[in-house]
Amino acid sequence: MPHESGFTFTAMKEHYFDDLKVGDRFKSESINMTEKQLIEFAHKFDPQMFHLSRKSAERSIFKGLIASGWHTAAMTMRLFVQTLNFAEGAIGLGVAIGLGVDELRWPRVVRPGDVLTVETEIVDLRASRSRPNHGIIRLRNVTINQRGEIVQTMLASAMVPRRAAKQRASKA
Amino acid sequence: MPHESGFTFTAMKEHYFDDLKVGDRFKSESINMTEKQLIEFAHKFDPQMFHLSRKSAERSIFKGLIASGWHTAAMTMRLFVQTLNFAEGAIGLGVAIGLGVDELRWPRVVRPGDVLTVETEIVDLRASRSRPNHGIIRLRNVTINQRGEIVQTMLASAMVPRRAAKQRASKA
Repeated sequence: MPHESGFTFTAMKEHYFDDLKVGDRFKSESINMTEKQLIEFAHKFDPQMFHLSRKSAERSIFKGLIASGWHTAAMTMRLFVQTLNFAEGAIGLGVAIGLGVDELRWPRVVRPGDVLTVETEIVDLRASRSRPNHGIIRLRNVTINQRGEIVQTMLASAMVPRRAAKQRASKA
Repeated sequence: MPHESGFTFTAMKEHYFDDLKVGDRFKSESINMTEKQLIEFAHKFDPQMFHLSRKSAERSIFKGLIASGWHTAAMTMRLFVQTLNFAEGAIGLGVAIGLGVDELRWPRVVRPGDVLTVETEIVDLRASRSRPNHGIIRLRNVTINQRGEIVQTMLASAMVPRRAAKQRASKA
């Protein structure tokens, strides 16, 4: 197992496909999920009683306000993007086969004031056949709260740029 | 195939688990994805060059501004929630096995001004063992744009309330 010593802070360093190895792990910065943000997100995107207000949430099976899972997912994307910081972006959409997200799960609720951190592990790397200047990464993102409890897990496949793209392109 | 005549508009009608059958289909209202919303979402949750501004997006492989896939996913949740309108909410998080989202894909980009609609199909229904007052629904959500092109697909499993929960609980 590589990196047994734990996660590496790499925020802001620019990454390319070529910099990564299977087993590489990264840890994001942390961010506070405020009550105001939770309620604002819910009004825009997930208007259900346990997300919208303290009062309505008290009557739900969660006995209090919780974040929309999509808010946790969106915040996870922010933390992931800031950490891996791919030179021209990480692309999870498009016609390439298999890009996207699998097994998105929310094992525990996120409550106002929780502080989230994302741990990323590279689980697979492969060249892109259709776009030789890019590679496809498969990764696992685990989002934890301030108590180290897992609040979200997912697998994702994204297309990211290769460092030596221009050189290879001119040889081809 | 049930409902060959197409989708049924059911926005605002309150739903329970008991109201649904495998094969039931629903169509949401439509919503415009404005450039302002796209950029605002990107700054909060997905700060990549092809989401953040027209100028930076012009230089990307998308040759222009596109929505974050997570923005499309969040907007899909809003349209879905408004359409199915479960009495006490649809719960995709928690300890129940298999709740969450699978195979989240974005086959086409969403651009400023695109108008999104969500088509929901119920693909499975089962009782909840741990919570007899709830059932588990498995559904496919397909998000389409104003040209009928698919911009997002997903499978999701959620826990939703049963209509006759109180009666059953008292007999048990």
